[in-house]
Order: sequence, then structure tokens, then C-alpha cells
Amino acid sequence: MKNVVQQNSSKLKIIPLGGLEQIGMNITAFEYEDCIIVVDCGLSFPADDMLGIDLVIPDITYLKENSEKVKGFMITHGHEDHIGALPYVLKELSVPIYATKLTMGIIENKLKEHGLERATKRKVVKFGQHINLGKFRIEFIKTNHSIVDAAALAIYSPAGIVVHTGDFKVDYTPVFGDAIDLQRFGELGKKGVLALMCDSTNAERPGFTQSERTVGVTFDHIFMDHKNTRIIIATFASNVDRVQQIINSAYKYGRKVVVEGRSMVNIIDTASNLGYLKIPENTLIDIEQLKDYPDEKTVLITTGSQGESMAALSRMASGMHKKVSIGPLDTVIFSSNPIPGNEKAVSKVINELYAKGADVIFQDAHVSGHACREEIKLIYTLVQPKYAIPVHGEYRHLKAQAALARELGMDKENIFILSSGDVLELDGNGAKVTGSVPVGDIYVDGLGVGDVGNVVIRDRQHLAEDGILIVVIALDSYNSIVVSGPEIVSRGFVYVREADELLEEARTIISEALDECMDKKITDWGKIKSMIKDEAGEFLWRKTKRRPMILPIIIEV
Amino acid sequence: MKNVVQQNSSKLKIIPLGGLEQIGMNITAFEYEDCIIVVDCGLSFPADDMLGIDLVIPDITYLKENSEKVKGFMITHGHEDHIGALPYVLKELSVPIYATKLTMGIIENKLKEHGLERATKRKVVKFGQHINLGKFRIEFIKTNHSIVDAAALAIYSPAGIVVHTGDFKVDYTPVFGDAIDLQRFGELGKKGVLALMCDSTNAERPGFTQSERTVGVTFDHIFMDHKNTRIIIATFASNVDRVQQIINSAYKYGRKVVVEGRSMVNIIDTASNLGYLKIPENTLIDIEQLKDYPDEKTVLITTGSQGESMAALSRMASGMHKKVSIGPLDTVIFSSNPIPGNEKAVSKVINELYAKGADVIFQDAHVSGHACREEIKLIYTLVQPKYAIPVHGEYRHLKAQAALARELGMDKENIFILSSGDVLELDGNGAKVTGSVPVGDIYVDGLGVGDVGNVVIRDRQHLAEDGILIVVIALDSYNSIVVSGPEIVSRGFVYVREADELLEEARTIISEALDECMDKKITDWGKIKSMIKDEAGEFLWRKTKRRPMILPIIIEV
Repeated sequence: MKNVVQQNSSKLKIIPLGGLEQIGMNITAFEYEDCIIVVDCGLSFPADDMLGIDLVIPDITYLKENSEKVKGFMITHGHEDHIGALPYVLKELSVPIYATKLTMGIIENKLKEHGLERATKRKVVKFGQHINLGKFRIEFIKTNHSIVDAAALAIYSPAGIVVHTGDFKVDYTPVFGDAIDLQRFGELGKKGVLALMCDSTNAERPGFTQSERTVGVTFDHIFMDHKNTRIIIATFASNVDRVQQIINSAYKYGRKVVVEGRSMVNIIDTASNLGYLKIPENTLIDIEQLKDYPDEKTVLITTGSQGESMAALSRMASGMHKKVSIGPLDTVIFSSNPIPGNEKAVSKVINELYAKGADVIFQDAHVSGHACREEIKLIYTLVQPKYAIPVHGEYRHLKAQAALARELGMDKENIFILSSGDVLELDGNGAKVTGSVPVGDIYVDGLGVGDVGNVVIRDRQHLAEDGILIVVIALDSYNSIVVSGPEIVSRGFVYVREADELLEEARTIISEALDECMDKKITDWGKIKSMIKDEAGEFLWRKTKRRPMILPIIIEV
Repeated sequence: MKNVVQQNSSKLKIIPLGGLEQIGMNITAFEYEDCIIVVDCGLSFPADDMLGIDLVIPDITYLKENSEKVKGFMITHGHEDHIGALPYVLKELSVPIYATKLTMGIIENKLKEHGLERATKRKVVKFGQHINLGKFRIEFIKTNHSIVDAAALAIYSPAGIVVHTGDFKVDYTPVFGDAIDLQRFGELGKKGVLALMCDSTNAERPGFTQSERTVGVTFDHIFMDHKNTRIIIATFASNVDRVQQIINSAYKYGRKVVVEGRSMVNIIDTASNLGYLKIPENTLIDIEQLKDYPDEKTVLITTGSQGESMAALSRMASGMHKKVSIGPLDTVIFSSNPIPGNEKAVSKVINELYAKGADVIFQDAHVSGHACREEIKLIYTLVQPKYAIPVHGEYRHLKAQAALARELGMDKENIFILSSGDVLELDGNGAKVTGSVPVGDIYVDGLGVGDVGNVVIRDRQHLAEDGILIVVIALDSYNSIVVSGPEIVSRGFVYVREADELLEEARTIISEALDECMDKKITDWGKIKSMIKDEAGEFLWRKTKRRPMILPIIIEV
């Protein structure tokens, strides 16, 4: 905190373009004079009211307007909320990507799917390596997380060093590779760190997150206790260490392993090709070979731990899976916690599994990938930043980290809870939010990126709630005659076959109102339409206390 | 278990008409020869995919078909999942209601709203009292739950005694009234109980549920620690004991109490009129008087503990409440746990409260109203039933109670996990599911009861996902001429102003296909419509990877 380096009078700008009012969609720009680097480029999954939306990506208007400045994307790890928007963003802004090996492997799968592999410059970075990009130098630092090869970044600028943890935890005994490089955090702290941007996800949780290895011990116990059943384990596809430990236990207990679910197969392929997964020979078998082995000699590793309706486990539970049927000789382990919002879906799958006679284990076979309070304190104490900028989490989590930073003795005015779009300017002399840039959610729906906005979503919400009533009339405007109609068609409003009377009454009311319009020689289609909406709307509300969308269509004949 | 009374050769039928594949909608018929009594008559809240539905009530076809047999509804307590369907069911089946005093008070509020108060016979029952109804005798037994005046039922039939716990917990030190009448459970057990139907909600949770009084102690501590802020406490409206304890702490610390939220005001009125709530004089003030007192001398008790978007707390959090604005001088307590499915909504409110500067306490200020494993064991051990029929809970909870009954030494074949509609016939000699009756979900949407079914819901889901595209043509069938159109109108599909080209292309494709139909003199409207659907659907899928509902409308001119 004492030795913050200050070589220049320009300030560093930190501009989060997403990720602060939501879980996911992490993307932050660092700008110094004519140079911008971007940390992460994630997507978020649609909120419940974003009907029909597949995924949400950040608005990168600011980056596009400053495209000549943008030097590259630094990716901390291979989770969707950190890489998922890359294929969309790269189509508008082609800049190089820097990431560690497994992270890059996962990104490359995505680029291939979008036909972007050839067009995108990529550089695989080793831990400890420094990348020079204009006024910036970026160092990748080893951390631990629920995916292998996660990195923190030290971002060196003439205004000082910013340490960005990415998503992380402290695992002294990781399954693959080294523990988090705490020494380097300490060294950087000694040098003097201008600002720390630290993962807040678990900032409300006391204590330390358990080591990933503890899950391996749990698996061993479960395998020991369930020697007479098949074992099916659902977990996150990207948790390569978890998969490794399942394979280890399976090998130890002489079971063959089947991998099921597209994303699981993809990640395991990538991880094992890149050397992040060691699979003993003759352990992996194809799902077609399951029938050649007794149940108690097999393990299935599958997607669907969040109750996703189309994932392999959900299809098994509901009896829709073509190759696996669940019965009393199955033990199903959820090696996961439900992500907030998925509780009901997970419970539905658990109920279905029980109903088919399976045993279900949904406790103690999971640890978090995020640092709890004591780990966050450790990082703060090593790094001793001048400024704290809590990141990654909902507002409540950022707030909890801010409170924790204060407990550690930081001044209130040196802690910044930013909003997406804020421009925080800082150097050794001070830090201040000086303005804001445009940010927002861009909806991806099918092939459309951004063609579904608030108007369309509001219409979908309206249609979802009460359906639609369409009123068609054919008009001879010149002679003020309704040539045909009103025809009434409804969908999602009432069951039409049993609502004849209601719809016929509505037709009569509209018809009478139309006649009045014609008598008065009202030929303004806008007026006629709004008359239809009012009359029909009022009538239906009175009769049903529902408000279907009323859509008058006039055609001229 | 030894002395099961058996006076007759007829069997008792237990027929759950709802509540077994879901949380809520509890309703069970007990039938003996020409006599049916019904325990509870609850609603359930719509699942996420039941778009636009307000609430769900049970299909009572079986009761209507046997209406001359039905002697009465026995209501165990005043929660919506036990009483909420009464106003709808009573319109089709007018039979007397039996319930304890507070339960009846809450039911009467509902009946008033639906104009059913005069038409419905009601009898308030005291604990220990027995009701004779044909072949049945029903005794109401004191229990504890998160609402006062909850009852278990002993149902005496010639085939034996069934004990139905309702929702319950064991509270040795309840806030109002007596502890659960464990002696009576013991006495009945000694007499010999044919079957026990026991609450399973917490059957997965070890140990004992804490006494409601422990929450009072927590409130005292929080009031002591927050002497300088206003205190806002959100809880379930119906938890009268909780409200009592808030009032107690407020009185002790010299604070005035405001009650906010319609359902909260209603229940508090009812409970205090009936003597279930003791409010010291000059403690309750109107919300308008808030401004006359310093913040730190007031407490608000409010609805919205589940993050319900229109509830008082949510409106305060989002700044939409007309009379209360949240700031740094507020401490907000969630005296509740999120019900599964509400986690995200609750988190949203917490985030908003934090963002307005309030302090938020969401731990340790709540206890469950349901019995945990040790309490369930206690009831089984007192009652020692011949048969066990776990009730109230999802399948996983029923299953957990069944496992627990086996741990207690019950035979597997004497434990029945029923499905709604099952007819379980039993007496001292045996028990068997012998058939089933029609059951189902009836959707209530606005004023409509049952007029929205699966077809309408599927349409709403389709509309919600991708919107609608309407194609209107005016046809002169006789001469095979398209007089006008195709007109294309879409809602909820693409933002029309930016999709001109796409929709124009679609119009051209449909137009060409129409011309072909006309050339071929195809006049069958069904064929023309399905051609339009196919052509437009295929085109739009190719262009957008979306499948809007395509609705061709033909009018003859």
C-alpha cells in the first residue's frame, strides 16, 4: 500500500461492461491512454422473464467505438460466464485472445462451432508469463477453481498494478497441478498494488472452501458402500478434476466408466487431449457397451446436475433416455449444488429418480469453486491493495466483500462497488467514478443477436400471460363498408371449443361498434383499431378478468 | 398395533384427491360404505410452465359423483394449501365445514370474498371434541405448526382408527396455547391405530425443529443490536405467533408497530378479534403515523418474505412503495426461508435493499413449522400404527418418511406411498390399492375455472417462446382469386421495424405458394392453411432458427 508505483500523470480507467448487476456476463475493459485490454467475455443465462431467449451477451458499443485501441482479450478461465460471448463479440471486433492452455482449448471448440477459428489470433499463455500489450503488461498467475487452468491477472499499467483474481478458491491440495501461487500474490503486494478486483461469490460464507480432494474421499466412501448397484454421477461438464476423481474411484473399485451428455463428452475429449485428465487404459467404455458389463461394474458420468430438462440425467429420470433406464439397482449422485433458480428443477429430477426406485445421494459430494471469507481475507492480506473493487457476484456479495475489506482496515472511500458501465479513473493519488459508457443486455435468440429487444419480450410476456385475440375485418374504405368479418381467432386465451358463446358475444359487440364507425364514416384505420381494442378489451376483462393481447387486422378489398 | 378394532367386514377407503405428486392441493377422501368425509381442500400454486395461471385446484369429480355420500370437510389448519380450494369446491358441492376457531375465521374471510358465507354450513370444533358423521367419528387433536390452532385428526371408522397429523411440529414451548397433545397420540396408540398419515415435509432433515420461541429470542437480540435504525420484518402473514413475538419485542424496546400488506392486515385482524393475538394498547399505529415517530422507534411487519413481486416489501425494495422508502437507517429482517423456487426472487429483493443502503438480516430469524426426523419418530412410536401412509411432501419426502418407518421396524408391505387418485382399501386384516378415481389439476385463471387446459397452456408456451406470425388473406374461393393479402403481422417474434426485409421475404414466399394453389384451383381452406404454415415455418426456421406460431386466417369476400 505504501509503494504504489506512479510513473505517469495519466490515469488508468477500469470499465466493467457487464457482470456487476448479475451473475455471469463478466467483461471488464482496462484503458490507459490509447490502449485497451479486456478481461473475460462471458455470457449470462436469461432471467425467467426473458421469454424464449437462449442467452445474453454484453453490449460492446464502447469497445467498437474504440476498436483501434483494443489490444486483446485476457481470459481467466473456461467457464461460459467468462468466455461464452466471445464467438458473438469476435464477429464484431476481431482482436487476439490470450488464455492458458485448457481455457484456450475450450475456447477453440467454440470458435470452431462458429467458424471463427481461422480468423481469430490466439496465444496460449503459461502461468508466470507476461504479455506486453501497448501500455499494459499482463501476468497470468496460477489459481484454483472448479475448472483447471484458472488464472488471476496482474495488470501492470503506468498508473500502477491491478490484481484481478478471476473466479478462484485456495486449494492447498488440488487434484491437478499446483496450489494457487500465494507467493506471487505476496510479492506483488510488497511491490505495491493499486487495486484488487476480487471474486465475491462466496463473500457471505464463513470459513474456508474445502479442497476438491475431499470430494474424492467422499466418492471412495460411496463406491465402498454401494458395491451392488450401478453408480451414476451428475456433475458440471467443465469440472475436469471432479471427472478425474470419479475415474480414479471407478478404477480403484474395478468399474468401467461411461461418459454421457454432449458437453461432458466434449470437455473430457479436450481435457484428455491436452493432458489434463489421466484415464487408465480400458476404463472408458462406450455407452453401447454398458450391456456387456454387470450394473455393479459400471459408472456413468453425466450432465444434468442442475435439472436441465434436456440433459442426459433428466432424460434418464423421466424415462426418455434411449440407452439408460433407471431402476432399483441404481445409485445416483448429484456432485453439485443447485445454482439459485434451479432448485425446483433439481428436486423434480430427484423425485423422478426415487419414483423409479433408485437411491439418490445429493449431499456432501460437492465443494464450491469460490473463495469463502477467510480465503478472501488471505488474498487481501497478501495483496494489500490501495483500492478494493469487489467483483463477481450479486450486489449482496459485493457488499459482503466490501464489509470484509473494511474489517481488514481499508478506508470506506477506497472501496468501490461499481455498476456496469461505470468509468473508474484511478492512480496512486486517487480514484473516482468519472462517467459512464453504454452497457446493456443483448439477447441471443436462435440465429438472431439483438433482434429481440424489450418490445418483443414484453409482447411475449403478454402473450404468455393471457394469449391473443385476433380480430380481422375486410374493409371497403371508400364506401365505408365492412365487406367481411369481424372474424375472431384466439390462441392461448380460452379453450375455443368451449368458449363459443363468449367469442360470439365479443364478435357481436365489435360488429356493432364497427357499424357505428361506418355510419359515422370513420375511415381512419388507427381509430377503428383502437375502438376494437377498447370494446373487446373491456368486454373480455369484465367477463373473464383476463387481458389477452387484442390485435385488430384490417385488410382493404 | 395389537388391538386394532374391527367391528365390521366393510373396508375403509382412503382416496387422496391431490397433494401427493406436488406441494399443496391437499385433499383426501375417507369413505366407508355410504359415507365420505374429506380432510382439507387446498390449492397449489402454478408451476413455472403453467403460464398465466393464478392457482390450481383439485378435480373433485369423484366427490361430485358421490355427492349424496359426502358429509363434510374436516380442515386441519388455515394455510392455503389446505383451505384455498374451498371457495371453488363449495360452489359445486355444498357440504358443511368443520375446523378449529382460527382456521374457521380464516376460511370465513374467504367465503365472504366469494359470497358463500350464507350458503355454507360451518361448525367450529374444539380440541378433544368428537364429531359424528354417519359411520365416521372425527376427533380434533391439538398440534403445533406455523399457524395457530392446527389440528391432527383421529378418524374413527368401523374398520379402525386413522390418525392424520395434518402439517405439524412438536413445540414444547409454543407461543400461544398448548404443546401438541402427545398424551392423546399415546392413548390412541394404546387403543390401536389402523393407519397413520403423517406430515413428510421435513422427513429428510435430521433432529428436532426448534421451538417458535427461539425466534422471539433472536428478535430480542436483533432489537438490542439495532437500537438506532428502523426495523422492518417480513414474514408469512399467517404466522400469528411470529407476529406476536415481533409485537412483544417491539413493546419491550418501546417501538410502535405498523402492519403493512393486505394479507397481513387481514390475518392480524382476524387473529386479534378471535383472541389469538395480544397487542398492548398504543403499540399499533397506522402507516400514515410513521412520520410522527423517529425511525428508531418503529417496526414494520410486512408481507413479501418470498420476494413476491407485488408484496409490500418488494415494492419498498424497488422504490415503488408509496409510503415507505428504504435507506441506510433501515434494518430489514427476513423472518422466513425461501420456499423452493423463490430463491432468485428473494435474492433480488435482498440486492435491492442493500443497494438502497439498508442492512439485511436473512439468517436465524426463522424456524420451520414441520416436524423433523426425530419428531416423526416420536409420533410413530406413540401411535404405533399398523399401516403407514406418508403424506404432505414431494415424492422424495414421502420416500424419506417411508425409510424412517422401516428403521422403526415397520414391515415394507405395511407402508404405502400413494399417488393422487389411488383407492387404498384397508382394515385390520389387510390393506391394498384396489383402484383409482379421476384426479387432476384444474386451472384457475381470472374468473375462469377449468376453461384453460392443456391446449391453451401449450399455446401460451409456444407464444412465450417465439411469438406469433399471422398471415391474413382475403379469398374469392369461387373464382380462385386472392382478393387481398397475404398481410403479415407478427408479435413477440422479431422487432418488426428492423425485420422488414425478413417479413417481406416471407410474404413473397407465401404469395408465390398461394398463386400456385390458385392456379391449381385448390380451394380447400385446410390445405391452403397448412401450405402457408409449412412454407412460412420452413423459411423462418432456416433464417432465424425460431419457430413462431404461424396462424393463417382466411376470410371469404
